[in-house]
Amino acid sequence: MTKKTIITISRQFGSGGRDVGKKLADALGIKYYDRELIEMAAKESGFDKEMFEDTTANTSRLFRFINTFGYSLGAPLSVMNDITMSDQIFLIQSRVVEQAADSGPCVIVGRCADYVLDNRDDVLKVFIAGDMDDRKKRAIQYYEVDERDVEASIRKIDRNRKGYYDYYTDKKWGAAESYDVCLNTSVFGIDGCVAILKQLLEQE
Amino acid sequence: MTKKTIITISRQFGSGGRDVGKKLADALGIKYYDRELIEMAAKESGFDKEMFEDTTANTSRLFRFINTFGYSLGAPLSVMNDITMSDQIFLIQSRVVEQAADSGPCVIVGRCADYVLDNRDDVLKVFIAGDMDDRKKRAIQYYEVDERDVEASIRKIDRNRKGYYDYYTDKKWGAAESYDVCLNTSVFGIDGCVAILKQLLEQE
Repeated sequence: MTKKTIITISRQFGSGGRDVGKKLADALGIKYYDRELIEMAAKESGFDKEMFEDTTANTSRLFRFINTFGYSLGAPLSVMNDITMSDQIFLIQSRVVEQAADSGPCVIVGRCADYVLDNRDDVLKVFIAGDMDDRKKRAIQYYEVDERDVEASIRKIDRNRKGYYDYYTDKKWGAAESYDVCLNTSVFGIDGCVAILKQLLEQE
Repeated sequence: MTKKTIITISRQFGSGGRDVGKKLADALGIKYYDRELIEMAAKESGFDKEMFEDTTANTSRLFRFINTFGYSLGAPLSVMNDITMSDQIFLIQSRVVEQAADSGPCVIVGRCADYVLDNRDDVLKVFIAGDMDDRKKRAIQYYEVDERDVEASIRKIDRNRKGYYDYYTDKKWGAAESYDVCLNTSVFGIDGCVAILKQLLEQE
């Protein structure tokens, strides 16, 4: 089996999947991308990160960006006009994910990176889950989600993640079959998950 | 964390999850249950295993069994009459799963064992997946599924498993969040999955 040097991480909101990714990257001494990815894309395009963070806002700026980027990607304008703006943003982000993977070993959290890099065989596709009680605590503590409707908020964010993933890929978000390995932080802890993944990468 | 000594395995049809379970039990030197479980239940009831294997057939024999077992379980007959026959079989199988777990370290494949044993904290809940191409090959080679409609057969069997699991549990079959760890045999191989699980159990 080809050695896995790129690790993609999908995760339930509040599961600590991002922490697992960060700590794993540190433990392996490799690069880590998630929001940084957005910034990289934004930087390359000459626009700032706010544009990417809320794709429903700043439409006029987005239009300017897409028009510029459409040309720079070399796509015929007629093609770029036929796909929606969020599709175009997905395409641009996918190119950034590919560039990140091309540049060497790294951990990439979110952005459907497992699907985007599906043609490579050096990618370990990870999904991180957690029990609802623990996810609630983490959402309140770290993300300052309102305690009164924390479970509804978590479910809504996960529904959005699932909707995005299922729309842009031919796989199902959170389904075991979509990933190489899935781990539950409520069972193994953040550090436990990092240790398991590290062992697993070294084993191959 | 409590040491995990009971390992439950759910699996996609053709993923080799049963082999992972058998090999893991051998490697750990602990008991292995799956069809044996059915036989144990049947033996206890004084009826033979065929009765369990096709719950839609042998209804008259099933009725005799349920009537006998209903009393032996100590449930009031009025309660036993209110629930369906398949519910009663599920309950009886669940008791067998509980007895198996009570009797010592073991691997239990299928039968919603992860849900049945949800109240115990010495249970590692595993799901085994596999890529469709490998599952097709295994289905043809080991289960003699007709090559012409092998994918449809696999999907039908998995739909049945999902339907059964989702009906009898409050969890979703095949969803990462329903298990502690999910592994893909197409990525790690049967022996690779066994090695990962063994390491993971020793780590705790």
